[in-house]
Amino acid sequence: MSSVFGKNIKISVFGESHGPAIGVVIDGLPSGFDIDHEIISKEMGRRKPSAGVYSTKRKEADKVEILSGIYNGKTTGTPVGAIIRNTDCLSRDYDNLDSLLRPGHADFSGLKRYKGYNDKRGSGHFSGRLTAPIVFAGAIATQILNEYDIAIGSHIDSIYDFHDIRFDSTQITREQLFMLRSMDIPVNDRSCREEYLEIIEETRKNLDSVGGVVETAIIGISAGIGSPIFDNVEAKISSILFSIPAVKGVEFGDGFGITKLYGSQANDSFYIKDENIYTKTNHNGGINGGITNGMPVVFRTAIKPTSSIAKEQDTVDIKEERDAKLIVKGRHDACIVPRAVPVIDAAAAIAILDILIDHYGLEGFNKGRYE
Amino acid sequence: MSSVFGKNIKISVFGESHGPAIGVVIDGLPSGFDIDHEIISKEMGRRKPSAGVYSTKRKEADKVEILSGIYNGKTTGTPVGAIIRNTDCLSRDYDNLDSLLRPGHADFSGLKRYKGYNDKRGSGHFSGRLTAPIVFAGAIATQILNEYDIAIGSHIDSIYDFHDIRFDSTQITREQLFMLRSMDIPVNDRSCREEYLEIIEETRKNLDSVGGVVETAIIGISAGIGSPIFDNVEAKISSILFSIPAVKGVEFGDGFGITKLYGSQANDSFYIKDENIYTKTNHNGGINGGITNGMPVVFRTAIKPTSSIAKEQDTVDIKEERDAKLIVKGRHDACIVPRAVPVIDAAAAIAILDILIDHYGLEGFNKGRYE
Amino acid sequence: MSSVFGKNIKISVFGESHGPAIGVVIDGLPSGFDIDHEIISKEMGRRKPSAGVYSTKRKEADKVEILSGIYNGKTTGTPVGAIIRNTDCLSRDYDNLDSLLRPGHADFSGLKRYKGYNDKRGSGHFSGRLTAPIVFAGAIATQILNEYDIAIGSHIDSIYDFHDIRFDSTQITREQLFMLRSMDIPVNDRSCREEYLEIIEETRKNLDSVGGVVETAIIGISAGIGSPIFDNVEAKISSILFSIPAVKGVEFGDGFGITKLYGSQANDSFYIKDENIYTKTNHNGGINGGITNGMPVVFRTAIKPTSSIAKEQDTVDIKEERDAKLIVKGRHDACIVPRAVPVIDAAAAIAILDILIDHYGLEGFNKGRYE
Amino acid sequence: MSSVFGKNIKISVFGESHGPAIGVVIDGLPSGFDIDHEIISKEMGRRKPSAGVYSTKRKEADKVEILSGIYNGKTTGTPVGAIIRNTDCLSRDYDNLDSLLRPGHADFSGLKRYKGYNDKRGSGHFSGRLTAPIVFAGAIATQILNEYDIAIGSHIDSIYDFHDIRFDSTQITREQLFMLRSMDIPVNDRSCREEYLEIIEETRKNLDSVGGVVETAIIGISAGIGSPIFDNVEAKISSILFSIPAVKGVEFGDGFGITKLYGSQANDSFYIKDENIYTKTNHNGGINGGITNGMPVVFRTAIKPTSSIAKEQDTVDIKEERDAKLIVKGRHDACIVPRAVPVIDAAAAIAILDILIDHYGLEGFNKGRYE
Repeated sequence: MSSVFGKNIKISVFGESHGPAIGVVIDGLPSGFDIDHEIISKEMGRRKPSAGVYSTKRKEADKVEILSGIYNGKTTGTPVGAIIRNTDCLSRDYDNLDSLLRPGHADFSGLKRYKGYNDKRGSGHFSGRLTAPIVFAGAIATQILNEYDIAIGSHIDSIYDFHDIRFDSTQITREQLFMLRSMDIPVNDRSCREEYLEIIEETRKNLDSVGGVVETAIIGISAGIGSPIFDNVEAKISSILFSIPAVKGVEFGDGFGITKLYGSQANDSFYIKDENIYTKTNHNGGINGGITNGMPVVFRTAIKPTSSIAKEQDTVDIKEERDAKLIVKGRHDACIVPRAVPVIDAAAAIAILDILIDHYGLEGFNKGRYE
Repeated sequence: MSSVFGKNIKISVFGESHGPAIGVVIDGLPSGFDIDHEIISKEMGRRKPSAGVYSTKRKEADKVEILSGIYNGKTTGTPVGAIIRNTDCLSRDYDNLDSLLRPGHADFSGLKRYKGYNDKRGSGHFSGRLTAPIVFAGAIATQILNEYDIAIGSHIDSIYDFHDIRFDSTQITREQLFMLRSMDIPVNDRSCREEYLEIIEETRKNLDSVGGVVETAIIGISAGIGSPIFDNVEAKISSILFSIPAVKGVEFGDGFGITKLYGSQANDSFYIKDENIYTKTNHNGGINGGITNGMPVVFRTAIKPTSSIAKEQDTVDIKEERDAKLIVKGRHDACIVPRAVPVIDAAAAIAILDILIDHYGLEGFNKGRYE
Repeated sequence: MSSVFGKNIKISVFGESHGPAIGVVIDGLPSGFDIDHEIISKEMGRRKPSAGVYSTKRKEADKVEILSGIYNGKTTGTPVGAIIRNTDCLSRDYDNLDSLLRPGHADFSGLKRYKGYNDKRGSGHFSGRLTAPIVFAGAIATQILNEYDIAIGSHIDSIYDFHDIRFDSTQITREQLFMLRSMDIPVNDRSCREEYLEIIEETRKNLDSVGGVVETAIIGISAGIGSPIFDNVEAKISSILFSIPAVKGVEFGDGFGITKLYGSQANDSFYIKDENIYTKTNHNGGINGGITNGMPVVFRTAIKPTSSIAKEQDTVDIKEERDAKLIVKGRHDACIVPRAVPVIDAAAAIAILDILIDHYGLEGFNKGRYE
Repeated sequence: MSSVFGKNIKISVFGESHGPAIGVVIDGLPSGFDIDHEIISKEMGRRKPSAGVYSTKRKEADKVEILSGIYNGKTTGTPVGAIIRNTDCLSRDYDNLDSLLRPGHADFSGLKRYKGYNDKRGSGHFSGRLTAPIVFAGAIATQILNEYDIAIGSHIDSIYDFHDIRFDSTQITREQLFMLRSMDIPVNDRSCREEYLEIIEETRKNLDSVGGVVETAIIGISAGIGSPIFDNVEAKISSILFSIPAVKGVEFGDGFGITKLYGSQANDSFYIKDENIYTKTNHNGGINGGITNGMPVVFRTAIKPTSSIAKEQDTVDIKEERDAKLIVKGRHDACIVPRAVPVIDAAAAIAILDILIDHYGLEGFNKGRYE
């Protein structure tokens, strides 16, 4: 019930879309890790509205100012504070929103929650813009994980009714994930890109929006990480994924599809190779009993269609207390799935780093210049 | 990463399948609420292996001994401690499991996690038996929620490839949910019961197992409960659902299906009736921006097929460090979905009570005999 | 083990003394409360090095920039993010500190903790400057508490060997506490001020430093707030007090002095007046069994002498790995007790607000413009 | 605000004095550590009312039944659940307490907190008996710490106005601490024992009670453990100490006494010996900036006189709403300080283990039989 996440790595996110700035505090990082600002910029860039067809025209500079916790290019081990100034805010686009509830948005639930006192300009604290600090925090976490050969990447599994091919979940490589992170529309089957863009473009022309599914893989985590029951690896990852706006479903391994298999199919058989134990299949997505089994951790996240659409919708005028019609103005993505990808990657990195510090402790992560 | 859940209502679960007892501590309950032991027994009975066709033959008495926190039939407000003695344990069925990893189980991940020191008899702390304390805690939470007209209930949405009809998610009644809680195979379309049992029975004959999907509804929660971003209502509920063994997917409202809708379809339009605001549809499952909107909270949970099957499976012998064959003995459910239903109901009740205490405080819940 | 405090009100502090900025995120505030920037400035001013005799000459502007969570002069209920830019940093004063450990400081423990990667300029994250964000957060909390007639104030109980008169702990008024908050050297017996300043001035001349004790009272809290055992009111308050640099002791009511009383003296007898129950004495400091009893909450905090002194001290040169002599340069308070007072007031306000939200919930605090 | 403590090691305590049982769940222990039941019994015995002069005549068997988490004599890494049955309860001694508030007790604050629904027999959840589960948990933690050569022990620093000699805080040995744990009245100066017992006996004859101060040392913790600001080592230890009934003050190192020193005296100078860094004095109690510095961690805890005394006291009859007289019947300690010693030792062990797991992780603690 808050804007703070985590047990060891604590992420505290703040800000409203049209306030002075948004930001984040990342507490509990191990010290002495190199932080490359180019990698941060690249990740921020992936979330940024692109010049391309699928995205809003708001120019979000998303320039991060790091205020603490990184010194001489390395994590100090003390909290990283960072802010992103809000610029290019056109609040007038939202003028009539004060009385008309936008369907699919948090206008009504937020009104009840905050008794009308929240800053509603640009959706305020509910804005998708609040995912920028998460991407920043994820860019830090990812660099630390990379030093331990843990890699994370996602492809767009589907947009509307069109599907990419899924990961072969027993055979995922660092190169493959690294490549996906460099694509504007990350897909396993390159031919999907055009199709996806076409669906989005057509939808935009219809003044409508579409959603999709993102499939993510994490490789390089040892077996035996996590604990059963509460806050296990699946619980932890799902908890942070559902914190991303527009997420309505999360599944691990075969997920809902596993209910269409018999046990004899769903059970992942073990085998030994070079003294290591693997599973032949990975229907369980790398997790048994809430604990990693050494296979790739694979999950899918369902992203609903953008709530803001230019089509006329039925709603309620809360000031006049009567039914009304609404056309949402402003610059909105016809499909936020491509921009959700780096957010999911970041969220996964934060969750995994938090889980790993439980296991290895700060001492296992800190690297000593002076011992 | 633990067996403790919650912020205000803290649930601490302990025990191994074949140890002396399993149990739970429930911390943070409001005081002065009537607790009916018959309701507890009924809920425990729903989770218990039934005499019916679909369930194991282990006779789990599941008799709860309450040690504290309830006095003169009411919650005292101090922690409720409760234990359930383990009886009828046939550990010999598990004898060969010490060296053979059961596919789909936590044998391997648990081995790595606990370095071999965990009690593996009957799956130990990983046993589905550990859901009994959750059901007990849920039975307490449910009774408190009932006093505020909040009701929770589930039906089996599917088993293997056969589907029940879904909730009409804008029109769910207390009576409907109450009825579901009284059915051994809770379904909306009564004709599904026979079909489900037939699938399970046939699967059992094939020495195999099946899974399914459970759909759950929570009605009576006011609009404006929860907070955006981390630990929001979806994040919190998903976190406890993924803590239930065999759960591999969670979705709210239309979930993954919402990705097959356009925004103009997925957005739930608002309307006013008798000065209250409702949505015409409920594709978002009663939650916008992580906060309740007053409509029924609806979610689905994917349960994988039981891992323990009598069919021969490929695996690894960790002592001899070679590939091996395994036939899992013991008494196992060919389908645990019916028994998962009360666990999901209980988990939802615990999560919702925890969220509500954030909102209303203990003072909003405590009812004064002496003020 | 972090820079995050609290359960409902979560305070996340960040920053280093000579980095770009320090700051804080305050999560979980109720919405709709008026925030007066003058009150914030006044509190920040109390912590600021004064022009007076007792304090450092560093000019800390301590100008807070609020980035989120306050809109139209009221709390929005979303996180308050705020930063204070660091200016007037003379890092050269600290040049030789890289190799010489300052006695009484966290140089050595910090070195071991952060493996040498922490920003040591101006003591970095260990700087007393990090109390400024706490004072800011406390100024917000205090204004919310004030609306419920809860008042907090402190006097300097002693400096070195000279003592003020203590609170009459059964008779403390809002006016008295309000007055104390307006004094540069807050004392109950006005004649102490001169004496205290004299001790400090003399100590400074000796290139030395002194500490003292601060006594704090919180009035207006109802009986029945808190819970026994862990995280009770005393545990919670002590936890945040020990988070303030230089604090080495905390006691409630008569504290250590209560061990010099017989039970018949220490027990606070009850009496009825106008249908309310009070205690005749308040040796227990307003708390029984970890729960408030409606009497003033009274505690004392021991502040050690400033570690930075201009006298030569024995220490170790960690680069040359040999014993060495050190004279700490820079501008340091000969006595930080007066500046610790507003920090203690702020910390107490944060802890009490956190505890009260447990009890009353957000709903008990939120005040509705739209219901 | 709960009966749950800790971040990594989570202790959940439950029970009422005259209910069926009290108990504890210890979550998050590392696996594979030998647990000696004799050591547990010895610790439980130290807390038990002794046959001696200073203690109640209630025969508390304090026989712990371990229900989970220990298997083949070793920790499994899953939660340890344990209960202690309540026997020898004479509830009739408390009959008149339903209407008469006992001064110094939590009767009034508890009444307000729980609205009258708490089990008041034998003080219920407020009973000092609830420290037994803490001692049990501490006995487990202590055995794990011992394997890392961390030792904890306490002596009674004072009872009423009589003082033992304090620890030489730079020179404390394992043998010394081990010896203290074997004494019924642990003292550094053996001649104090008789004096202490005399004071207690005389007090008892006067139908009164006395308190005292306990001084505790923890040796063997490396430098660099903990983090600054919130939840630092002092904050964490003080938080659990104030969770022990009757504790009214906590101080580290010289504590309140350090305010009577000049900075030049209070600062602990560093020196090198055999390539290790030590401090010449230990006025800071082994902690700088909230982080250990490798010297013994030393703190003192003030225990108030037993609230239950046989002398007549003024109080209030809440049923008749008028002033009244009260003589507390039942069997009560004239001084609980000796019995508080093992509780403080246990609480310190729990806090330290929790802090160390932050630092080293489970992996640093787990010892592999199978890797």
